[in-house]
Amino acid sequence: MEKIVSLQNNRVKTWKKLATKKGREQAGTYLLDGWHLVKEAAAANVELVTVMGTHSAWQTYANELPAGLNAIEISDDVAKAIGDTVTPQGIFAEVALPKASQQLPEVVTGAWLFLDAVQDPGNIGTIVRAADAAGFTGVVFGQGTADQFAPKVVRAMQGSQFHVQLVTEDLYAALRYFKRSGLEVYGTQLDPTAKNFRDVTPAESFGLIMGNEGNGMAKGLGELTAANLYIPILGQAESLNVAVAAGVLMFQLKQGK
Amino acid sequence: MEKIVSLQNNRVKTWKKLATKKGREQAGTYLLDGWHLVKEAAAANVELVTVMGTHSAWQTYANELPAGLNAIEISDDVAKAIGDTVTPQGIFAEVALPKASQQLPEVVTGAWLFLDAVQDPGNIGTIVRAADAAGFTGVVFGQGTADQFAPKVVRAMQGSQFHVQLVTEDLYAALRYFKRSGLEVYGTQLDPTAKNFRDVTPAESFGLIMGNEGNGMAKGLGELTAANLYIPILGQAESLNVAVAAGVLMFQLKQGK
Repeated sequence: MEKIVSLQNNRVKTWKKLATKKGREQAGTYLLDGWHLVKEAAAANVELVTVMGTHSAWQTYANELPAGLNAIEISDDVAKAIGDTVTPQGIFAEVALPKASQQLPEVVTGAWLFLDAVQDPGNIGTIVRAADAAGFTGVVFGQGTADQFAPKVVRAMQGSQFHVQLVTEDLYAALRYFKRSGLEVYGTQLDPTAKNFRDVTPAESFGLIMGNEGNGMAKGLGELTAANLYIPILGQAESLNVAVAAGVLMFQLKQGK
Repeated sequence: MEKIVSLQNNRVKTWKKLATKKGREQAGTYLLDGWHLVKEAAAANVELVTVMGTHSAWQTYANELPAGLNAIEISDDVAKAIGDTVTPQGIFAEVALPKASQQLPEVVTGAWLFLDAVQDPGNIGTIVRAADAAGFTGVVFGQGTADQFAPKVVRAMQGSQFHVQLVTEDLYAALRYFKRSGLEVYGTQLDPTAKNFRDVTPAESFGLIMGNEGNGMAKGLGELTAANLYIPILGQAESLNVAVAAGVLMFQLKQGK
């Protein structure tokens, strides 16, 4: 197995640059850090461009990975340099970015979440994971929403990018697709006069828009929705974290009674 | 107004140490960073031991704060040194830690969340904020759960510590209190054979246990609950982020139909 021990190695430099959007676009790949993600990628038949592991990581995991991988042994120092975590597990994979043609299908079905300028990578990843758990088909990343494959997003998604479709699309265009497909799209508003989310009949297929952490959903989008929903706040909190709000809404609209 | 510009000033050193549990215990205070939190503390009549602001922050906020504060002007460098954020708003308050006698009342009422070894400060703060929004009365911090006043917890709570009661208590003891008060306590389990959370009748008063991010709720606790609840996972995600799961459960059990 090829071994890389120097932090000056060009491959190592490339892997470190995968932490940036520019680096990911240049390489056409992004980085998975940790066994859970590498395992999920292998199970999802995602192309593992390279799998990198420390000596001890290979001893632990080699038997559980498919044969014929482009496998590289890396030193502990290299593992620390390319990882996003303080105590890396020592196993990484470089996987291909999805093709640029990620678009909504002509006829949309299933439940989809729209992210309107959601900023925090941890929130975004947590939301994608919750969408997966709630049985959503996909997540549409609108303009101003953080990149799908930033390290903190990837960590928080916990592999759900292999289970739900991630699409980058203008949300106004996405709204038109949904309407053409005969599906309702709901907005969200921090406004007690908006529609109580419990008054929506749960359905198989629909769209749901979550807005920016500070400013909420764009007003123009709210004017095009079937209804804008509100989660009644009983206490004195001014609002909910966007990932918690998305979770509450997704589980109710998709699975509720 | 007293001015502090040197990073070597003893007060500055004390404020920096408030980032650690030891520093907070020595000073008997914790730090609020940013206008939203300072405003919430003032509105909640919490004792503001000291309010620190940069020159421009005082110009912006002085009129909105009560008179007679122990106010200090700090330099931008000091603001950066004591703050937890990359771009501080330049307004801080040192507030008294709640008294050591935070205990559950003899007769418990209302909905309470129990945190069993929840580790991530951002998750904990987000959960307290969601508990506030869902109309919960309090949150019990069990053993192994991160400190209530760590900077990242305080940031994510967004002031909800002034609205809900935060109690540090052994969870087995807390369970006994609830039983004596005639209240049900529900556990949570990542186990499809556990009880579907939608099959619980929403109520005003009850307890709900959320477990550790990796290992879930302690088995011993689960043997003492009225029932252990499960959120049905429709997709392929293995689990939900603990703050999202707590939000879904709290809003259903407290407010659901």
